[in-house]
This record gives sequence, structure tokens and C-alpha cells, in this order.
Amino acid sequence: MQPVCLVIGAGAGIGGNVGKRFAQAGYHAVLCRRSDQDGLNKLVSDIESEGGLASGFLLDATKDGTIEERVAAVEADLGPIEVALYNLGAQIGNRALTETSYKAFELGWRLGNFGLFRLASAVCPLMEERGKGTILVTSATSAVRGNAGQHSHAAAMGGRRMLCQSLNAEFAAKGIHVAHILVDGAVDAPDTLGKMLGAEQYQRMREERGMEHDGMMLPAKMAETYFHIAQQHRSTWTHELDLRSFSDLAWWNH
Amino acid sequence: MQPVCLVIGAGAGIGGNVGKRFAQAGYHAVLCRRSDQDGLNKLVSDIESEGGLASGFLLDATKDGTIEERVAAVEADLGPIEVALYNLGAQIGNRALTETSYKAFELGWRLGNFGLFRLASAVCPLMEERGKGTILVTSATSAVRGNAGQHSHAAAMGGRRMLCQSLNAEFAAKGIHVAHILVDGAVDAPDTLGKMLGAEQYQRMREERGMEHDGMMLPAKMAETYFHIAQQHRSTWTHELDLRSFSDLAWWNH
Amino acid sequence: MQPVCLVIGAGAGIGGNVGKRFAQAGYHAVLCRRSDQDGLNKLVSDIESEGGLASGFLLDATKDGTIEERVAAVEADLGPIEVALYNLGAQIGNRALTETSYKAFELGWRLGNFGLFRLASAVCPLMEERGKGTILVTSATSAVRGNAGQHSHAAAMGGRRMLCQSLNAEFAAKGIHVAHILVDGAVDAPDTLGKMLGAEQYQRMREERGMEHDGMMLPAKMAETYFHIAQQHRSTWTHELDLRSFSDLAWWNH
Amino acid sequence: MQPVCLVIGAGAGIGGNVGKRFAQAGYHAVLCRRSDQDGLNKLVSDIESEGGLASGFLLDATKDGTIEERVAAVEADLGPIEVALYNLGAQIGNRALTETSYKAFELGWRLGNFGLFRLASAVCPLMEERGKGTILVTSATSAVRGNAGQHSHAAAMGGRRMLCQSLNAEFAAKGIHVAHILVDGAVDAPDTLGKMLGAEQYQRMREERGMEHDGMMLPAKMAETYFHIAQQHRSTWTHELDLRSFSDLAWWNH
Repeated sequence: MQPVCLVIGAGAGIGGNVGKRFAQAGYHAVLCRRSDQDGLNKLVSDIESEGGLASGFLLDATKDGTIEERVAAVEADLGPIEVALYNLGAQIGNRALTETSYKAFELGWRLGNFGLFRLASAVCPLMEERGKGTILVTSATSAVRGNAGQHSHAAAMGGRRMLCQSLNAEFAAKGIHVAHILVDGAVDAPDTLGKMLGAEQYQRMREERGMEHDGMMLPAKMAETYFHIAQQHRSTWTHELDLRSFSDLAWWNH
Repeated sequence: MQPVCLVIGAGAGIGGNVGKRFAQAGYHAVLCRRSDQDGLNKLVSDIESEGGLASGFLLDATKDGTIEERVAAVEADLGPIEVALYNLGAQIGNRALTETSYKAFELGWRLGNFGLFRLASAVCPLMEERGKGTILVTSATSAVRGNAGQHSHAAAMGGRRMLCQSLNAEFAAKGIHVAHILVDGAVDAPDTLGKMLGAEQYQRMREERGMEHDGMMLPAKMAETYFHIAQQHRSTWTHELDLRSFSDLAWWNH
Repeated sequence: MQPVCLVIGAGAGIGGNVGKRFAQAGYHAVLCRRSDQDGLNKLVSDIESEGGLASGFLLDATKDGTIEERVAAVEADLGPIEVALYNLGAQIGNRALTETSYKAFELGWRLGNFGLFRLASAVCPLMEERGKGTILVTSATSAVRGNAGQHSHAAAMGGRRMLCQSLNAEFAAKGIHVAHILVDGAVDAPDTLGKMLGAEQYQRMREERGMEHDGMMLPAKMAETYFHIAQQHRSTWTHELDLRSFSDLAWWNH
Repeated sequence: MQPVCLVIGAGAGIGGNVGKRFAQAGYHAVLCRRSDQDGLNKLVSDIESEGGLASGFLLDATKDGTIEERVAAVEADLGPIEVALYNLGAQIGNRALTETSYKAFELGWRLGNFGLFRLASAVCPLMEERGKGTILVTSATSAVRGNAGQHSHAAAMGGRRMLCQSLNAEFAAKGIHVAHILVDGAVDAPDTLGKMLGAEQYQRMREERGMEHDGMMLPAKMAETYFHIAQQHRSTWTHELDLRSFSDLAWWNH
């Protein structure tokens, strides 16, 4: 059985590209996303057409038991989860406090924070028993600073980062590598940014940004760094890093 | 009507002492806590015996509507809330991941994070209308680093800090001062630390710490800084500060 | 002999106002600045006309021995230095790397970093012997993030903050309170900002900023917080805090 | 002419291994160190024996003009500097304030901070003209927290980090990638740690640490991450990352 790279949040952006990158290196890419069976099928068949191994599952991470059951089924049916990527965002755009409902705030926590806790609760004991494993966590600028209108997102992401640190503190010495990857800028991702902006504005942003169209982060390039992090020798682990385009300002320079 | 200082989380430690300090300065101290009617009555009568104005209410911040209803009732009956202190902790001691239940994790969020969001949602519109107000938030070392066993607490507090930043970003220019007060060390508080450690160990800790018994943070002294922060002129606001005893190491030096 | 508050960098802004505030509380304010004997005399006589005790000295902190000799002379002649404020800035405006000379870079270090080390080397042994003392350090946004054009300033201030932390780590338990005060915004200070901008632009900035002319930090109000920090009980010390106007964005929100 | 990877601070630890890694990928490794011609020769011949291209130079970075002249000579004689690694440390062990001389403090700045400024001043204009280049900077825990006894080192490293940020802010959009690599733990490096501890204690540490002898950071493994950072696509750059062994605690957990 090949080792599994489990992706929670596998759209056409970071998640799908990370899955593809690991599949190229011989992992079985297990891609999970909330909806769009067609998009999911395409990701799987793209990987398979390159000779890689992939499986796809629809999974609603806000529902009880979904992540846990998927982890158990993957381990039983497909192979040991050596790498798990938690790639669910919780960005809902800027909303004033009075326009941020309790429901929106709770959903932010559920996707941004509790979902990672559930994933870790499911995979850490398995990884601990095997003495190794990697948990990659996509995170956002809101994990390190709260902007106006980001009440739900910042609360969720700030918690996500601290959760990564407490997981790392408990599990590093047991061989589990937890990495908090701070994505500080726009990603060229049609499923998320594209939908949020609409097709026209998204295309305009792609054209305007940067020199030679690389002013937005290219998910296939990001996947190279995700992959590198998971390959680091255990004498030399990175726990936190940032990623942004050369043409962007760092969040602390805005 | 005198201005109100509303304290959510008013035990015999920080909360009660902050209420007392504001009452000495002419505020109506409105003290809320989850349980212990006798302890609450004592806090109120202590303030009254010094000539101050105080009211006490039992309030379970994990229950729907409790904070919101208290804010509305205080504004209707007692006076405008000029200062609100969110002083609820979410520390449950160190627990390995497998011993941190989903329920404990959610409760951490509910007390550590969502409760502050609810308080802010209730008081910010009132303060904004008046063009002024102060929200003091007691926070913990877990807001800036996640230690082993602190999964629930760190996730809650990391979110708390980022929420304070996003509130500040939206409301500072509207005259609302939000301060995140990082309490980095043991507080000499019989209701929380005392109960967690047990009477004997607590007394031993008090005796062993520091020179002249001030190696633990004295809540009456902390209250002076809470009060100062709320009195800062709006040209000169502090948004984040730390507090620890001279005899303690800063969290980053441990 | 009255306790001394020694101010290194006493212009008409923060330094002079802090001296004044401590003088009002009974300290002997010892004001040091590089130039402008008339301005210095005025600060001293203003304090004296309010019934306070003040002395003024011209002092070039870039010259060998100047700080050290002043500390020794003050201790011998005027009283024990209970509070020392290091208030020298090293801002030279934004300069591209190629326009930042080695000399400018070194001067930044000399004023921003080495001067504080010299002051601490001179006063810490005295304070340690007395078992108490306070070192207040004015710092800048550049201590926590480096912007374009801030090569010299950011290198100096980043070093200043870390130096404050290492001083605090060695001396807190010995009764010396070191506080790093991050001034994150424009101060209404004619001697520094006023000179940098020129009279006309400075006045325009004063008028444009904020509501009711308090959109710039008012140094007399800042001095209240400096004073509070120095009065904190040793069970409850603040090591780091930020200051900005209500109408300004925090550096992390820009 | 092959592209050059210039290493300032090339001992048998990080510097030498990074040079070796880049040489394996076709770069001309230009190795500079202060002393030990034999050790330098060995590094060069090791690379050459693997079929790589390498040159070695003794260089005292505390001396005026040395870095600048080496940069100019390399560009004239060997090839364009595509990657420059600043790998000089400034650790002098823990020293109380009274035992930290002005000279030691200044030397810390000179090696820890000013040397990087000089290197950047020399290479950035060249890289800017070519529209690309990478500056890798080895840094230390002291860049983010000041411990007792680390006055010189923390001041130097805190400044180093902020300098990296201001360089990044000016030069990222011009195609120059600046990466601040926080080495948070002991490196298995005979030239630095080995000499500091002495042969016997060093060997004991190697034996005691971690499981299977990888509890210290292995410089050959670290070099893989240095190399990866330099290969990141410009749409996806990391500016800050940490490195530590799985068996070590992060600095914020100590």
C-alpha cells in the first residue's frame, strides 16, 4: 500500500495542486471537498492520467463525524496517512461587526479551528503509533493580525495558529511534523478567489497583477514548498513559514 | 446616572478588584459571575461599605442570550456601560490531545472567544452611538504561544487576541478603546488558581513565590493598570500590554 | 535628596513632558539633550515655575563617555536615579539602500542601540544595589517591522527591543523594571516631527489629523502612561506596550 | 560562467554544506571564512572531488572593505552572484551585563548586523540590475526574543531580522528574494558549537541528543531547505521560516 496524502479542502487551487504534487512522488492522493463532484472527478482523473494514484470524496467538514470517518476509511482501505493537509479556509469577506452574525462567527470557528482539531484528533494517534507523520496546515494573514471586518476569520485563524503550536509542542518529539503555512496574499485559485470575485473581476486581477502574470501566488508553485516541508529531515523541521508573491508587500508593510 | 463598569467574570481575583477600583473612581460596578451568590454578595457589599456603587448578577456566559440580556438590562436600569471588562478564562489545565474532548474544545471557544464576540456585539453599537467606550480584555500567555496540553486554551486565546485586533481596527476611530491585557503568570486569586491548586498547594505557592510575598500578581495592583488603560486619553491608547511579576520570567524566556 | 528621573533625549515632546510629569510627583527631573540650550532652559524653568525640581544638561550621546559621566555626576550631586528614560530616536526618514551610507547606518546603531546599552551599563549596577529602579525606553514601530527605506532605523530599533528583553531577563528579578514603549504613530512634538516636516507641513498635519486635534499623540498624555508604568507595583509589571492615537491604524492594519 | 553562490561564513557547518548543495546543482560555490586555510581548502576540494565548482577565500568581515572587495572580485572573475548567504554568527555565550564590554557589544553589531548591511549594499544593486537574486540570512532565536546574558547577541540579531524585513520591502518587487532563516536550536557543527563546547562535551551532546543521533540539526539537511528557498518561484516566496530538530522544543515553549 502506498502512503497516503490526505487533503481536506481539495479545490483547483492549493489543495488540488498539493495532492497532485504528492501523487507525482508516489503518494496516494486522497482528495476531499465539500461539493462539485465534477471538479473532484477532474482532479482525480488529471492525477491518474499522469500515472498517479488518487481518490476523491465529497465531505462536509462542518458535519459531525465526517472527517473522522474519512480518516478511518482511508486508513482501512487505501493506506497509512503519512501526510494530512488541512486546507479549509474560513474567509467570508469583510463584514462590519453588526453584520457578522453569531452563525457566521461560529461557522468560522467550525471550519477554521475545530475542523483542524478534529483532523488532528483522528490522525495523531495513528501517526504517533507509527512514529512519524506530517500535518500541513494552510493558514492566512488573519492568523497573525486582525483587520477590520475580519472578526470571524481572524478569531478562527488566530486560534488555528495557536492550535498548531500546541500540537507541535505535544507531537514533534513523537515524530509528527506540524507546519503552519501562512499564505499572505492572493492565490490564483479559480474555486475560491475566482468565485468570490466573479469571473470578470478575477480575470482582471490576474492580468493586472505582477510582471509576467505571476503576481498572484501560483498554486502549483506553492505545492512545491508544501512538498518540501513534508520531506524535511526530522533533524530540521520548519514549523512556521510565510508565502507571498515577490510583487506583494508583506502584511507588516501594508 | 453614573457610568457603568460591567465586569463579566467577577471573582475575588482580577474581576472583583477591577470592579472595586472603578467603583472607587465613581463608576457603578456591575459584577457578573457564573456561581457563588455569597461570594458575589460579598464583593458588592465590600464596595458599598467603601461608599461605592455596585450590583451583582449571576450569569452563565455559556448560555444563549445571557450576556446580551444583561447588557440591555444594565443600560436600561443602571446607566451607560462606559467600560466593559471581559474576564472569563478558559484554562482547563494541561491535557494531552487524546484527553481533550470535543466538548472541552468547544467550551474553550465558547468562553474564550465567542463570549467576547457576543459582548462586543452587544456593547459596541451603544458605545459607537455615544462616541466612546472601553473594552478591557483579560488574556493569557496562550494567546501568543501554544504549549503542549493547551490545545483548547491556546486555540481559544489565540482567537481572542485576533478578535481584539479586529475589533480595535473597526472601532478605534469611532472612539472605542479595546485593550488586550496579556496576563503572563500566576495571579494571587483564590477563586481560580486557588480552586485549581487546592487550598494547601495554593498557600504553599503563595509562600514560596518571590520576595516579600509579591511573586504572584496581586489583583488589586493589576486593577490599577486596568484602570489606567481605561483612563488613557484617546490620543494615546494602548492596545496590547503584558503583565507579570518582577520575579517571573517572561513567557519568551522560559 | 529626591529621587531622580533622568531623561536622555529631552526635547519639547515625549522627553520634556515625561520629565515634567515626574517632577510633578516629586522627582528631580534631570533633562539631557544634544543641543538648544535655550529650549533646555525653558523646559527647566517651566518645571521650576510649577514648583518642581529640574536640572538640564547638554549631552551628545554619540560621544564616548558622555552618558556614563552624566550618570555618575547625577548620582553624586543630585540623587539616586530611580527612573531613567532613554528617549533618543534614530529616524532619518525613508532612504533607499543605495542612499543609506555606512555612516548613517552606524549612527542609527549608535543612537538607537548602543546608547541604551551604555545607559543600562551605567545605571543597572546602581539600581541593582538599591534593589529597585525603572528604565523606560521609547521605541518605534520599526522595532517590530522593517519597512522599505528604514534600513538603518529598523536595524537599530529591532536591536533596541531585543536588548530591552535581555535586560529585563537579567534584571527583573533584581528589582529593575525595564519597559519597552512602542510609539506607533505621529507624536505632536515640535522638536522632532516639527523639524522633520517643516513648520508649515507640521501645522497642516496637526490640523488635518483626527477629530478635535487629538489625532496626533499628545506628549503630555503619553507622559501619563510613562509615569504609570514606573509606578506599577513590582508584582505587576508591564514590559511591552504600544501607544497610538484612536484615529490611527495599528501598524499591523496598514 | 556559472552562477555563483557566495557564502560569507563558510565553516564545516551550515555555510560549508550550503555551498556544497548549491555546487551540486551547478552553482560555483564561493566560500569565505575568517581563518583556517586548511579547513577552507578541504571544503573546496570536497566539492571539487564531487565534480562541483568551488573557490575559497579568507575574509575578515569585521575589516573595512573586505566584503565589498570580495563581491566585486567574484563578479569580475567568477560569475554573477545569484545567491548570497550571510552566515556569520555573533554568539559569545551568556554574559552578564557587567561582563559584556562595549567592545563585545560593538563586535556583535559589526558581525551580526553591519556585515549584512554591507553585503546587501554590495550585491543588491547588481541583483537589481539583473532583475533577480537571492539573499539567504542565517539567523538565531535571539532575533525574536532576548534572553538573560544575550545583550550583545540579541541586539545584533533583533536588528538583523528587521534589516531583512526592510531589505525585503525595498527589493522583493525588484526580483530579489531575501529570506530570514531562524535557526532555533543546536546545529551539529564542529567549527562553531564544537569549538564553543570543547571536543568532549560536544561529543557527549551529540550522543545524548535525540533518537538515532538526529537530535541536533544536521547541516547537510538544513542545506536542503536553504536550497529549496532559493529555488522558490517568485510567485511564492518565503521570507521567514524557522528550523529546529523534531526533538527540540520551540523557543516559545521553553
